[in-house]
Amino acid sequence: MGQDSLKEEEIVELLSGIENVRLNEDESAVVIVDQTVLPGKKELLELGDAKALYDAIFELKVRGAPAIGICASYGIFILAKQIQADSGETFYKKFKEAAEYLNSSRPTAVNLSWALRRMEDVVKANISKSPKEIVSLLREECRLIQAEDAAMCKAISEYGLSLLKDGDGILTHCNAGPLATSKYGTALGPLFLGKERGMNFHVFSDETRPLLQGARLTSYELDQGGIDVTLICDNMASIVMKNGWVQACLVGCDRVAANGDAANKIGTSGVAILAKYYGIPFYVLGPSSTIDFHCKTGEDIVIEERNPEEIKCKFYEKPMALSSVKCYNPAFDVTDHNLITAIITERGILRAPYTESLKKAFPERVIE
Amino acid sequence: MGQDSLKEEEIVELLSGIENVRLNEDESAVVIVDQTVLPGKKELLELGDAKALYDAIFELKVRGAPAIGICASYGIFILAKQIQADSGETFYKKFKEAAEYLNSSRPTAVNLSWALRRMEDVVKANISKSPKEIVSLLREECRLIQAEDAAMCKAISEYGLSLLKDGDGILTHCNAGPLATSKYGTALGPLFLGKERGMNFHVFSDETRPLLQGARLTSYELDQGGIDVTLICDNMASIVMKNGWVQACLVGCDRVAANGDAANKIGTSGVAILAKYYGIPFYVLGPSSTIDFHCKTGEDIVIEERNPEEIKCKFYEKPMALSSVKCYNPAFDVTDHNLITAIITERGILRAPYTESLKKAFPERVIE
Repeated sequence: MGQDSLKEEEIVELLSGIENVRLNEDESAVVIVDQTVLPGKKELLELGDAKALYDAIFELKVRGAPAIGICASYGIFILAKQIQADSGETFYKKFKEAAEYLNSSRPTAVNLSWALRRMEDVVKANISKSPKEIVSLLREECRLIQAEDAAMCKAISEYGLSLLKDGDGILTHCNAGPLATSKYGTALGPLFLGKERGMNFHVFSDETRPLLQGARLTSYELDQGGIDVTLICDNMASIVMKNGWVQACLVGCDRVAANGDAANKIGTSGVAILAKYYGIPFYVLGPSSTIDFHCKTGEDIVIEERNPEEIKCKFYEKPMALSSVKCYNPAFDVTDHNLITAIITERGILRAPYTESLKKAFPERVIE
Repeated sequence: MGQDSLKEEEIVELLSGIENVRLNEDESAVVIVDQTVLPGKKELLELGDAKALYDAIFELKVRGAPAIGICASYGIFILAKQIQADSGETFYKKFKEAAEYLNSSRPTAVNLSWALRRMEDVVKANISKSPKEIVSLLREECRLIQAEDAAMCKAISEYGLSLLKDGDGILTHCNAGPLATSKYGTALGPLFLGKERGMNFHVFSDETRPLLQGARLTSYELDQGGIDVTLICDNMASIVMKNGWVQACLVGCDRVAANGDAANKIGTSGVAILAKYYGIPFYVLGPSSTIDFHCKTGEDIVIEERNPEEIKCKFYEKPMALSSVKCYNPAFDVTDHNLITAIITERGILRAPYTESLKKAFPERVIE
C-alpha cells in the first residue's frame, strides 16, 4: 500500500470511529485505551508528554505491533508541536532526540522504529521549511500511517470474510483484533466486518496462557462488538472441534518465512495440528509487513523466551507452583506451512505452495 | 487383584512410607495431606470425626478416585471404633448411618461408594460376632484396600517403566501421581519407580487449566521426588514435542470404553493428537476399575461440565474476562482409541485392537 494511495476524504473516513489510539480534540495529546486494566475497567489515557508516551509503550498499556507504531507516530507529532525552534535544522535536532527516546521504550518492536523513521523522513525531506510547516506535514503523515493501517485491516477482513459462511463457528487464539491495530484487526477483522453486514458467527476464544490475551482482550472485544463469543481454556480446543462447533480457525501472525512457515503466539501450532486432524481450515491473517523474505523457513525465526514468573505467578493470588520448579516459557511458536490452508494479506488470499505464491504477491520484496 | 492375594507382611511392606492418606499412630484419626493448599503449604490434617471426614472429601482436601476410596475406608473404620453397641445388629445399624453420611459427601465418586460398600460387606458377613471383633476385621479390610491400591500402582508402574528408556523426555497432563492414589500413582508411577532404580527422566508437566493440577500437584510431586520437571502451559506441548524433547506421553484415565476410547482430564485428547502428529508414543495408564464394558465407545461416556467461574475467576486476583462472556468448561474429554499406543493396567500392556485385547485381559467382566 503506497503512501500516495489515500486521498484526504478517504483518510477522514478511515479514521472515523477509531478510539483505541487517536489524537484528542485539540491535538495536544494521544488518547489510548489502557490495555493493562481491561477487561475489568475501560480507561482512556491522555499521553501529552514524552515520559507518558514512553511509559505507556514500555508498560504495554498500548500493545499490538500496528497499534504501537500508530501511537508512536502520533506521539512524536505531539512532541514535535512542543519544540521551540527558529529553523528546520534546529527543529530536526530536537525532533531526533525525542524520537530516539520514544524508540528506546521497546527496542524490539519493529513497527515502533518503522513508524518513527517514517516520521523522521518527513522532517528530513522538508528541513528547509519552517518548523510550523514541518509540523503540519507530520500531522498528515501520522494520520496517513493510521489510515493505511485501517485500510490494510479492511482489505484483510474482506479477503478473510470471503472464506466464511454466515453462522460459521470460528476458533481464534490470542488477540489480533482492533486493540492491536487501528480498526477491525487482522484475524478478528472478518468477524467485525461480517457483523457490520448482518452476518453472525459463533466464536471460540482460546484464553491464551500465560498472558490471557484471549480472555482479557479478544473475548472483551467480540463481546463489546455484539459478536457471539465463548471463552475456553487452550486445552479445550480439541473437544470444541470434535463437537463439530468449528468451521474455520483464524489466527494472526508475527512473522511469516518465505516458505509460508508462520510464527505467532505460543500455542498456535497446536491449534493448527488439531485443525488438520479434524479437517478444519486454518487461516493465517496478517499485514504484508510480517512477511520476512530474509527467513527462508521457520527454522530461521528466533523464538523469544520470557520470564517463568508469567506462568507461575502473574495474575494469581499466590504462586501456583513451587519456586524450585523450572518453567519453559516461549512467547511464540512456528506453524509449519503444510498446516496452513491459506495466508491472507492485504494483497489477497495466498495458497500453497507458499514459496511461489508469496513471491508472486510481493515481487518487489523477494530476496534472491 | 483378589482380596486374598496379599499376606500380612506384604500389606505392612506396601503401606510403609505412605503419607498422603494413613491412620495416625493410635489409630484415632485419618491423616491426610491437604491438597487444596499445595504447593504453597504442606499441611497434614487429622480427621477424627464424621464431620471432618465429610468436609475433607467434599472440599477436595483429598482428591483422586483411589485416594478418596482409601480415605473413606479408613474413615469409616475410625467411626466404627467410636460406636457404642452391645450386639453386631446394633453395631451394623449405627455403622450404616455413618457410612451413608460419608457417602453423601461426593455422590458421583465411584471409589467412595465402592470402598464403603466393601467395608459394609465385612460387617454384614460377621454380624454374629462382637462389635470388638468386627472392628478388628474392619481394620484389616481398610489396610487391605490401601495395600491393594499400592500393589496395583506398583504393577502399572512396572509395566509402564518397561516401555521407557533412561534419559527419556516425558510429557504428562493433569495429576495421576501418589497424591491421587496410595503410592507411586498411575501415570507418574513409572517415573517414581524408575527414579528408585537410578533412572533419570526429564518430565514436562502441562499446567492443566483451569484447575492447575499439573502446576499445583504434578510438578510439586515430581520436584519433591527429585525428578527433573519443567512446568509448561498446556499450549506449549506442541513446541516442546517439536523441539524433540519428548519420547513418550503418559496420562491417567477416568473411564475407558470397551473399544479403548479413554476419558481423562480435559486437554488429554489434544495432547494425543499432537503426539500422533510428531510420532511420539501416547500411553494411557490406569487401574482396571476404570475400564467400563458398559460403554461400547467414547460416545457413551458423559462429559461433566463445570462452573465457568473456574475459567474466569478461580485462583486469580480479579476476574480475567467480562462477566457477560460465556465459557464452555468441560472437565474431561475422550481420546480416540486410534490415538493410543497402549493402555497399561495392572494386568499388563494392552495394544490395539482394544476391543479384543481388553476382552482378553478382563474375560470375567465382558458384557455380551
